Amino acid sequence: MITPIDNRLQESLRNKIDHKTKPLGALGQLEDLALQLGLIQQTLTPTVDRPALLVFAGDHGIAATGLVNPYPQAVTAQMVLNFIRGGAAINVFCRVHDIDLRVVDAGVNHAFGEEVLTHPSFYAASVARGTRNYLEGPAMTSGQRQFALDQGAALVNDLRQSGCNTVGFGEMGIGNSTSAALILAALTGLSLDVCIGRGTGATDEQLAVKRDAAARALALHGPHIAGGADALERVGGFEIAMMTGAMLRAAALRMTILVDGFIAGAALLAACRIDAAVTGYCVFAHQSHEQGHRHLLAHLHAKPLLQLDLRLGEGTGAALAVPLVRTAAAFLCEMASFGDAGVSQATGTDAGDTLAADRADKPVEAAS
Amino acid sequence: MITPIDNRLQESLRNKIDHKTKPLGALGQLEDLALQLGLIQQTLTPTVDRPALLVFAGDHGIAATGLVNPYPQAVTAQMVLNFIRGGAAINVFCRVHDIDLRVVDAGVNHAFGEEVLTHPSFYAASVARGTRNYLEGPAMTSGQRQFALDQGAALVNDLRQSGCNTVGFGEMGIGNSTSAALILAALTGLSLDVCIGRGTGATDEQLAVKRDAAARALALHGPHIAGGADALERVGGFEIAMMTGAMLRAAALRMTILVDGFIAGAALLAACRIDAAVTGYCVFAHQSHEQGHRHLLAHLHAKPLLQLDLRLGEGTGAALAVPLVRTAAAFLCEMASFGDAGVSQATGTDAGDTLAADRADKPVEAAS
Repeated sequence: MITPIDNRLQESLRNKIDHKTKPLGALGQLEDLALQLGLIQQTLTPTVDRPALLVFAGDHGIAATGLVNPYPQAVTAQMVLNFIRGGAAINVFCRVHDIDLRVVDAGVNHAFGEEVLTHPSFYAASVARGTRNYLEGPAMTSGQRQFALDQGAALVNDLRQSGCNTVGFGEMGIGNSTSAALILAALTGLSLDVCIGRGTGATDEQLAVKRDAAARALALHGPHIAGGADALERVGGFEIAMMTGAMLRAAALRMTILVDGFIAGAALLAACRIDAAVTGYCVFAHQSHEQGHRHLLAHLHAKPLLQLDLRLGEGTGAALAVPLVRTAAAFLCEMASFGDAGVSQATGTDAGDTLAADRADKPVEAAS
Repeated sequence: MITPIDNRLQESLRNKIDHKTKPLGALGQLEDLALQLGLIQQTLTPTVDRPALLVFAGDHGIAATGLVNPYPQAVTAQMVLNFIRGGAAINVFCRVHDIDLRVVDAGVNHAFGEEVLTHPSFYAASVARGTRNYLEGPAMTSGQRQFALDQGAALVNDLRQSGCNTVGFGEMGIGNSTSAALILAALTGLSLDVCIGRGTGATDEQLAVKRDAAARALALHGPHIAGGADALERVGGFEIAMMTGAMLRAAALRMTILVDGFIAGAALLAACRIDAAVTGYCVFAHQSHEQGHRHLLAHLHAKPLLQLDLRLGEGTGAALAVPLVRTAAAFLCEMASFGDAGVSQATGTDAGDTLAADRADKPVEAAS
């Protein structure tokens, strides 16, 4: 069960932010972020502890058909090995920003060898060697869906026990932008046309084929999808479902969730339909180029921190949000207030009038 | 003299980026940034060494009139003390991101005491105790303008000698958004209406008074402004002129320049009119709310990395660009290529065809 965000601290947090030595609102989105962190952690002094990034990898039955993906399915497993060897973008991003990267086999169609299985950052949590092709039936069974949700929750339990309070989610799964689009269309009623985009590198021709396959999948499954769990089961992926379970658990543990891009957004949308209170714990990291992502963010009333034209996945956007989250927590905890610093406020502001008395006995000129 | 950016490495850099284990273009603006860093440093392996941030503080004669600023002029000196004591936003940002912060008295109307003068991060480079009121004549003499430019250059020489290759610029100066707007209007011919904004915290009424004062200043000085040096001299500030000198020197030393917000942008605009080659060395950190800033960025054909609604100055936007610049340099240097990692590329891409042969002898499946 997720405790909905308790807003009683909001006024105290706003007051603390407004008395920092800066004009009202001058730190823009970082102020909203600091306030959110305070509410998540129910404190005036939030911290970012041992931030971690979980990359969930899974394969999709549909990908074997080549209908929705310009890259061969084998790339999912190849990229898992790349993650383990430290050569992928997300490895570099996590090293630069001191983020603990964990790689999760949620259901890759590959038998990984010793190098992967024994790596300390690797979690073997495979539901199966890829989902079923959703053009032929549900992508997974109810049991598989539940196993994926539970595994995601268990991974986050481990992270929390290791002292982490901030977790980003990324993914790798050839074909998974189509799953994300189908989840979005099925759960929101948005037209498939606005939900489907190029994903990772599709040409015009590939895009047309992808749209056609997605339309057939939606016709087959749409009528049977009433909630988040249904959507995951019928058109999702193991990596998406496991991410959904991980997000729900992270919120239940009052952790800050860094939502990456389109695929992670679809996992969150499913999570919302299971427990709407999850969104209060979410920081939206990046707005991707994928057109469905814009609609998804609008649907969730989310304003992402970054717009850097990333379209890679892997959690790269979430990783880039970590320095911003650290900055927001730090300014709230460490910046001086007008009173502390003896700095004059703007004429005509209420706060200035209030503080004038506080400042009278310690003018800054005398101190320097 | 600034050496214009030599683009001969562009193709090699683009090629290196395109063979990283990611779809073409998938790292968006970070790819452009990595390429720019490579060109600035003329290497395929750029680095971010000892990044520093210089905050230039100066007072403005106009501020004593209260026409353009809701905050009293004394705040400039108070904030310098806050910088020295570590309590301002930029202190926090620099601590979080491991940036070397230096505070420069470019011309504050205050006699700083021992605590400030002996602080290792403080540079005493004061031109005078604030500029003249530009409603009554030029803000500074030609000699003062040249002294400011030279001091800025000297500070950057010091930084470069200490091993820094990446420098951000920030400012503190009550009233300086009006100077920035006047520089922008005078040097571009843009209407003052689009150049003047609220600055830091002006109300509607204050804004109208500010516009009127600025219009009088532009009528007085505009006809005499032919270039960057004239603009600085007639309507600039000591902190702005010193920043201009620092930027020109940083580019001459092939350093990466992180341009903060509106005021830093105006300093850069003046620098461009002195030597246009400076822009090749500039990374635009943040797009502020200040309306003139949008016009200034458009004029410079600049696409900033961040849009976080910051409107504080102090170099806060530039500081937040540092983690992105580090990420860009790191992915270019550290990410595996498709060949290194044995990852398949998209069907139908030229790079994929080229690499197929490279990969044949080391399939990833065999390695795992």
